[in-house]
Amino acid sequence: MSVTAAKGFVASGVTAGLRPSGLPDLAVVRSVPRAVGAAVWTTNRVQAAPVTVSRRHLAQAQPQAVLINAGCANAATGAQGEADALASAEGLARALDLATEEVVVLSTGVIGAPLPVEKVLSGARMAAAELSADGGEAAASAILTTDSGPKVAIANGVGFTVGGMAKGAGMIHPRLATMLVVVTTDYPLGEGEAEKFLRPAVEQSFNRISVDGDCSTNDAVVLLANGASGAARDDAALVAALEAVCSDLARQVVADGEGATVVLEIGVTGAASEGEAEAIARRIATSPLVKTAAFGHDPNWGRVLMAAGSAPYGDGYARLNTDRLSVSFDGVEVFSLGAPTGNVPELSGAVCRIDLDLGLGDGAAGYLASDLTYDYVRINAEYTT
Amino acid sequence: MSVTAAKGFVASGVTAGLRPSGLPDLAVVRSVPRAVGAAVWTTNRVQAAPVTVSRRHLAQAQPQAVLINAGCANAATGAQGEADALASAEGLARALDLATEEVVVLSTGVIGAPLPVEKVLSGARMAAAELSADGGEAAASAILTTDSGPKVAIANGVGFTVGGMAKGAGMIHPRLATMLVVVTTDYPLGEGEAEKFLRPAVEQSFNRISVDGDCSTNDAVVLLANGASGAARDDAALVAALEAVCSDLARQVVADGEGATVVLEIGVTGAASEGEAEAIARRIATSPLVKTAAFGHDPNWGRVLMAAGSAPYGDGYARLNTDRLSVSFDGVEVFSLGAPTGNVPELSGAVCRIDLDLGLGDGAAGYLASDLTYDYVRINAEYTT
Repeated sequence: MSVTAAKGFVASGVTAGLRPSGLPDLAVVRSVPRAVGAAVWTTNRVQAAPVTVSRRHLAQAQPQAVLINAGCANAATGAQGEADALASAEGLARALDLATEEVVVLSTGVIGAPLPVEKVLSGARMAAAELSADGGEAAASAILTTDSGPKVAIANGVGFTVGGMAKGAGMIHPRLATMLVVVTTDYPLGEGEAEKFLRPAVEQSFNRISVDGDCSTNDAVVLLANGASGAARDDAALVAALEAVCSDLARQVVADGEGATVVLEIGVTGAASEGEAEAIARRIATSPLVKTAAFGHDPNWGRVLMAAGSAPYGDGYARLNTDRLSVSFDGVEVFSLGAPTGNVPELSGAVCRIDLDLGLGDGAAGYLASDLTYDYVRINAEYTT
Repeated sequence: MSVTAAKGFVASGVTAGLRPSGLPDLAVVRSVPRAVGAAVWTTNRVQAAPVTVSRRHLAQAQPQAVLINAGCANAATGAQGEADALASAEGLARALDLATEEVVVLSTGVIGAPLPVEKVLSGARMAAAELSADGGEAAASAILTTDSGPKVAIANGVGFTVGGMAKGAGMIHPRLATMLVVVTTDYPLGEGEAEKFLRPAVEQSFNRISVDGDCSTNDAVVLLANGASGAARDDAALVAALEAVCSDLARQVVADGEGATVVLEIGVTGAASEGEAEAIARRIATSPLVKTAAFGHDPNWGRVLMAAGSAPYGDGYARLNTDRLSVSFDGVEVFSLGAPTGNVPELSGAVCRIDLDLGLGDGAAGYLASDLTYDYVRINAEYTT
């Protein structure tokens, strides 16, 4: 059900002819009652045209519909790219009788190629005509590129629902700019409130995953809330449901990371601060040596120490004292307060859990990562321009 | 000739039985006249025992000899590791009639295993007995682990010589802690001067290379200067010779990176500051997507933009404005002032040059990197504990 699980949302997915494969490649999500919304965007300084245009729209109006195309990222396309993104939004707005600023446009696909704007416009008209409360799965399928299948998640609160769909396997495929997420809820939020709820949920989910440490030019997470449930306010329940949906989708993105065979769950506790815990967890999650070891089912704590000791933080590295540090793999302690324990855990599952206790303070953070495999290299090296 | 190319230095390499392969695994370098010296150490917060001991020694005395063993990194070995590193220094000092503080000890190999100190001590005695002015190549061979061969470099100034040897292919091999460099010169330097010359040379060479972005627990670059040339002071000539030797060795380390088939030369100009130029160059040099594209001889400028736009600097990213940015591969411009040029350069060499002009200021920096290949994954995944 994905983005149409919550009341008052309709969606559709169509084939606009943007992907050479001929698979569905254009999706629309719309709120039927007036919605409020917010988005979290890529922090990359190279931002795709749809990101630039949609940020502007969100500053001017509450978003009522989202238009997503696969096959072309419309990134690094200059002034023409912006004009094309704007024209796409205008086209959908006309079909749905909305103001152009009420449309968010998102693109994923090849960087540097111009957007086939006529195909997008006719696709948008087609998608607008097919919008339905059953269209969530079609929409989730029409935003994919290298994903092995649609990624959807739902969480129910008391009297309301949060649903979402995601696309992405890291900034991973040749010239593809990747992670796009749309989350909808029928929970009642006022104008200006959506971002306050979305940002922390993203921080704890999509900002705590790594496939290859690369950050795309198009990443976006959009939340629409329309209040159609009629539920009473219970903000804590919304926070829980949003986090559940975002974490579920984030984990699906990691597990579907190109070439991935293992999901690494990294837990850091006892850091001097939360920021340092996150820096260390991220450094481990992005270390090629840790990720190849995971692929080889090797409980290689030496590499984990190496990575933990060189986690960029502020002007230097996150604090760490080897003598207070303990490390375990899948719950088996391999390094305790500065010395090896001699334990050699058996790793063979699709999940590898690595826990570090730094013994310095209360800072804690978790991270999910995929392993680094032959298939990752194959997928990213064999395709040539 | 490596470390014995400069006058007044003797060296040797022996088999102490530390490597299962039975290859030479212990080297000694000594200055015959009194030398001054300095070292630059790994910045990893997890530091190996020999690093801790040698830093202390350098704070107390001028280094006269260096003892290097392969096969065991003596890292993450706690108090016993420090005692073992100190005992090794004492053993060599006794054999050479030096104070213990005048000996620098360096180790490379498995992290977490105790140092076989008896083997090191008998190896050090053997190596002390074999020291000779012809021993530079034997020493360079005895410090290797996964290297495909010895790495040596020499540069001549007017009346003096700088020679060096290096070991390392990144923090790359399972549980190996890696890059070690010894540079010797017969140029005359006073006490306390060596670091002033060594640090900038390292900054422009070993700190501008990346095999896998990982930073070992044992990295060290040591400089010994004994004045035996009798040459007159010409500090600019020393700077040039030191940079030549360090850059030559650094390039050899990258070219010998595990599994490497391509050396990436990354040049960034026009950045808002030198620090931002370096941040962007490093980010490109460590991007798995850029490195797999290089393996596939793919001039994938979209990935270069993605990496350049997300280079950590200060609290955010290095400044970049797509509209002022131009990118070329092997001298062929592929992206010019914010728009693709349509050029598709043919890449097929063992070197791939990527130049970015940011058009913002005078900041410039270069970086060398190896590509990311199947063999990198094989080497680092197939070995299991």
